[in-house]
Amino acid sequence: MAIAIVIPGRDVRSLKKRLEELLPGEEILVYPEDVKHPKEVEVAIVWNHSADLWERLPYLKLVCSFGAGVDHLIFDKGLPPNVRVTRIVDSQLTVGMRKYVCMAVLNLHKNLFHYYELQQKRRWGRLKEAEIDIRPGVLGLGVLGADIAYHLHVLGFEVYGYSRRPKKIEGVHCLSEKEDQWEKFLSSINALICVLPLTPDTYGILNEQLFNKMPDGSYLINVGRGHQLIEADLIRAIKSGKIKGAFLDVFSTEPLPYEHAFWDIPEIIITPHIASLTDPDNAARQIAANYLKFKEGEELENVVDLGLGY
Amino acid sequence: MAIAIVIPGRDVRSLKKRLEELLPGEEILVYPEDVKHPKEVEVAIVWNHSADLWERLPYLKLVCSFGAGVDHLIFDKGLPPNVRVTRIVDSQLTVGMRKYVCMAVLNLHKNLFHYYELQQKRRWGRLKEAEIDIRPGVLGLGVLGADIAYHLHVLGFEVYGYSRRPKKIEGVHCLSEKEDQWEKFLSSINALICVLPLTPDTYGILNEQLFNKMPDGSYLINVGRGHQLIEADLIRAIKSGKIKGAFLDVFSTEPLPYEHAFWDIPEIIITPHIASLTDPDNAARQIAANYLKFKEGEELENVVDLGLGY
Repeated sequence: MAIAIVIPGRDVRSLKKRLEELLPGEEILVYPEDVKHPKEVEVAIVWNHSADLWERLPYLKLVCSFGAGVDHLIFDKGLPPNVRVTRIVDSQLTVGMRKYVCMAVLNLHKNLFHYYELQQKRRWGRLKEAEIDIRPGVLGLGVLGADIAYHLHVLGFEVYGYSRRPKKIEGVHCLSEKEDQWEKFLSSINALICVLPLTPDTYGILNEQLFNKMPDGSYLINVGRGHQLIEADLIRAIKSGKIKGAFLDVFSTEPLPYEHAFWDIPEIIITPHIASLTDPDNAARQIAANYLKFKEGEELENVVDLGLGY
Repeated sequence: MAIAIVIPGRDVRSLKKRLEELLPGEEILVYPEDVKHPKEVEVAIVWNHSADLWERLPYLKLVCSFGAGVDHLIFDKGLPPNVRVTRIVDSQLTVGMRKYVCMAVLNLHKNLFHYYELQQKRRWGRLKEAEIDIRPGVLGLGVLGADIAYHLHVLGFEVYGYSRRPKKIEGVHCLSEKEDQWEKFLSSINALICVLPLTPDTYGILNEQLFNKMPDGSYLINVGRGHQLIEADLIRAIKSGKIKGAFLDVFSTEPLPYEHAFWDIPEIIITPHIASLTDPDNAARQIAANYLKFKEGEELENVVDLGLGY
C-alpha cells in the first residue's frame, strides 16, 4: 500500500519528507512521476487534481483533501462513489481566518481606508461619524464561522449568525434555515461575512437578490469561495449604493485576471486568497494519522459528507 | 454654586443642555460668556483651557477633565494645589481603543497595506511570508491597556504587558518596572503599543534608546499622546530598518501640519486622533454624578493623582 501526493504545480518535497518522518516504512509517492504501480495506491492527498485522476489511480479508496475545502472534489463528477474523502481541520486555519475577518470588520468600522486616502493627500480629516456602526452577520456557523462570530462578539460587536440547523454560540444571535429566519438575518445585519463551503447549494448565493434583502449601504466580506459571488451583481450593487464596500479574499478566477473590473473599484479591497492558509506540518500530521487508521480499519477523522459538502 | 464649561473652540450647546437635564436647578455656565460672578464657580469642566483660567476663576475647587487624559492639567504649572481633578472613565472609550489597536495589530500581521499597494497596480501578489509574526507589547496596563492586552490574547497573539507595579491579566505576560523587566519586555516583543498617559515621566519615552532595545524590524503603535514620541527618532529608526512600520493616532502637533515629514513615509499609517472618542452623553452623566457628590461632600469617582498623572 502507498500514498500518492497529487498536488500539481506545487513544490511538495517538504510535505513528502514530513510524511516519511511521520510514517516510517510507508511509501510516499509524488504523482505522477513516482507512481509505477497504480494498484498499490489506495490513498491520495489531493489539491487541484486533473479530471483523469480516477482513471489513472483506479484503486483509490481514500482521498485526503489538502485543505479545509473539498469543493474541488464535490464538483468532480468523476469521483468514484466508493472513495471516501477527508479534509483538514486545522486550528491554525481557524485562527488565521478569525484574524482576517476581525481585521476586515475593524477596518470598515474605523473607516481606515478613508483616512489612508486622506493621508496620500497630506490631509488630516476627521469624519463626523467617527465610527461606522457595523452589525456583522456570519453566514455559515461551522468551525470557522462559529469562531469568527464569537470573536467579533468579544471585540464588542453585536453579531448575528446563520446556519442550516439552529446553533448556540455565546453572545451571538444565532438564526437558522430550519427556523425560516433568512430574511430576518439579512435585514438585521449590515456586514455579511460569507464563510460557507462551496457546494451546489451555495454556488452563486451572494447575488443581487440577497443584497436587496440587506439594508442600503451594507458591506460584504467573502472568505468562502469565489464561485459563491455573482461578481457582476456586486459591481451593480456598489454602483447603486446598496453595497458600500467589500473585502474579498476569494474570486471565481484566481489569480484575479489583470483586466478584471474589481481592481478599479475603490470600494473593494482585494487580498490574494491569503485569509488563512493550511499549515503543511499540521496537515501532514492529520493525514498521517488518518492513513494509519485507514490501514487498521479504524474510524477516520474529519470525513466529508459529500452530500452536504463539508 | 455653579458649573462652568471651559472647552474653548468647541460647540458645547448639547453638553450644556444634557447637564441641565441631569442637574435640574443647577446653574450651567459656558465660559467665559455666561460667567458673571466668578465667586460662584467652584466646579469646571475643562479641555484645552488657556493659562489664565485660574486667575479668572479663582474659586475653583473641582476640575473635571472632559476626557480620559489629564495631561493638559498636569503640565499646567498654574493649577492651584488645592484644586481636585477628576477624569472620564468611559467604557465606550475602552471599547473604541481596543478596536483601534486590534485593527492596527491585525493589519500589520496580515500585511494588508502591502496588498493594498499591489491592488493599485492590479497585481495579485502572494507573499512568501503569508503572515508577519507580531508579538505585541502593551506599554501601560491601566483600564485601556489591560483591556487591549487581554483582547489581543483572545484573538490569538502572544501578548506582553508592562506597567510600574506588577499586574495580572489572563493570558498576558505581565512584566513591571518594580521587577526591573524593562529590557526583557522590549526584547520579547516586536510591536510596541503605547497607551500611557502623558506625564513628565512619559514625555519623550518613545525614543531612539527605546527602539534600540527592541528587535530589528519592529513596529510601533501610538495611541497615547503625541509628546511621548520623539518624532525625529522614529523617522531615523524607520530609515535604518530598526522600525519597520508604525500606526500613529496622536502627534505632538495636531492637526498634523501639512509640511510634516510623516505624511511622506509609507511605513507610517496616520489616523487623525480617532482611535477613541469620549461619548459626550456618558461624560455628562459622570460629571453630573461627581458634581452632586462634591456638593454633598461625598467621595468623588475617578479622582486623578496629579503626582502619578492618572
